Amino acid sequence: MNDVTGSMQPIQPPSTERKRPLILISNDDGINAPGIKALADAVADLGEVWVVAPVSEQSAVGHAITVRDPVRAQEWPFKVSRGEIASYAVTGTPADCIKLAINQILPGRPDLVLSGINRGPNTAVNVIYSGTVSAATEASILGIDSIAFSLCAWDASDFEPAARYARLISEKILREKLPPGVLLNVNIPALPFEAIKGTMITRQARSRWEESFSERMDPYNRPYYWLSGRFVNLDEGDNTDIYAVEQGYVSITPLHHDLTAHEHIATLALREWNLNEGG
Amino acid sequence: MNDVTGSMQPIQPPSTERKRPLILISNDDGINAPGIKALADAVADLGEVWVVAPVSEQSAVGHAITVRDPVRAQEWPFKVSRGEIASYAVTGTPADCIKLAINQILPGRPDLVLSGINRGPNTAVNVIYSGTVSAATEASILGIDSIAFSLCAWDASDFEPAARYARLISEKILREKLPPGVLLNVNIPALPFEAIKGTMITRQARSRWEESFSERMDPYNRPYYWLSGRFVNLDEGDNTDIYAVEQGYVSITPLHHDLTAHEHIATLALREWNLNEGG
Repeated sequence: MNDVTGSMQPIQPPSTERKRPLILISNDDGINAPGIKALADAVADLGEVWVVAPVSEQSAVGHAITVRDPVRAQEWPFKVSRGEIASYAVTGTPADCIKLAINQILPGRPDLVLSGINRGPNTAVNVIYSGTVSAATEASILGIDSIAFSLCAWDASDFEPAARYARLISEKILREKLPPGVLLNVNIPALPFEAIKGTMITRQARSRWEESFSERMDPYNRPYYWLSGRFVNLDEGDNTDIYAVEQGYVSITPLHHDLTAHEHIATLALREWNLNEGG
Repeated sequence: MNDVTGSMQPIQPPSTERKRPLILISNDDGINAPGIKALADAVADLGEVWVVAPVSEQSAVGHAITVRDPVRAQEWPFKVSRGEIASYAVTGTPADCIKLAINQILPGRPDLVLSGINRGPNTAVNVIYSGTVSAATEASILGIDSIAFSLCAWDASDFEPAARYARLISEKILREKLPPGVLLNVNIPALPFEAIKGTMITRQARSRWEESFSERMDPYNRPYYWLSGRFVNLDEGDNTDIYAVEQGYVSITPLHHDLTAHEHIATLALREWNLNEGG
């Protein structure tokens, strides 16, 4: 990202005169996905709700932003049971949506940013690939409370139990706020509402993908590769996001965007770093 | 990312019989960028060096991976002063390159993955948007020592001092290894080699981008937006990546890929979370 100091615009101050909270909703499955509809429907009466989301699916984009191309936004029909919601579809990533919404589209600085409800879990190492989490992370970087919601089933069709929990957690955070710099990554088991046992505050499980690539030949005899893989949980802990969901709890993981491995600064500093003499 | 358990391939074991270390190099500026050429040139004699890098520029892609399209790889001419290096250009992101290289292209599991040398700093919050760091992070997730290198000038043309430091640090890590799960994010000031004061172990500075979007009209009278912004350092610390580079030191920040805000788990757990009764 280039440091272009041209036509700078200050971030709007909090909308203290606004009576109802301003809530921004985005996702990575795209503005027409059922999960974002369920989320907007569930929180529609908690404040003034705006939807600014990618026009097309943006799964696994990580924290990408669009810097080499312009982005476009167009008004988009978005109907929930309470009526029409102000909505824009953006030709960009989830992080683009948050930046553009806050700088260009919304009538003020939002009080809360919600992302999801994603189809499929965003637990363990998947957090780092997740566009859903990325939208919430971008809001957090800008100093705004934010929550990412994922329903832990790839073939999910009933978002209603997850949406009810999304509402409950959103209400709570609107009331109580989050610690500065912290966002919540919420993973909800694919169970009926009554079967969900409650919530659990968790950490990301250690895990990895064991990848394989399926090699194929195109009609011109040139190879191409499809990424696939097997998810491997390396973590036996009883306080992880994966464990909570497996046990039927809503997993709530506090995240931040500081990737520094603070616990290793001191030990690395003890090593001999006189490189340009020894080398 | 889908959990496809089809044609799984185990990750290759470390190449214990190999005499020379196997070194994989990637980047996000693309395989033809001068920074990756300088890096490969500088470490060419440290082991068996392979270059697997994006065919086109992939800046600001964050930790994106390609899941909805196949990726392609083609052999690519890559000449350094010691001769030709085995090289593939990939139609994907930096993280794709690492996954594909390790699973399909390399003759074994690499001992070290290097990414860069990026044109422009990857300090502070920029780490989260950086494709350069993402390549190293992907290697770290797979359990391989890795280092991301960035030269702190957007208009850099002389990569030689940075490449000399990249070589010194790579040699050191090949000898001493990194703690498990830790990668190094190295930012090198744009100074002559002799003017660089040494190295400093640092943390990411707290910072944000104050964005603005430049709105323009296309010939069909539809608006489009260019993202720009002003980088704001919010951190006065004398142990940050930004501080080190400003003072003329090579900044070495240990990173990990666990985004959990561990220090907030206990305090969040103290809140009342009986949501489905209270709500």
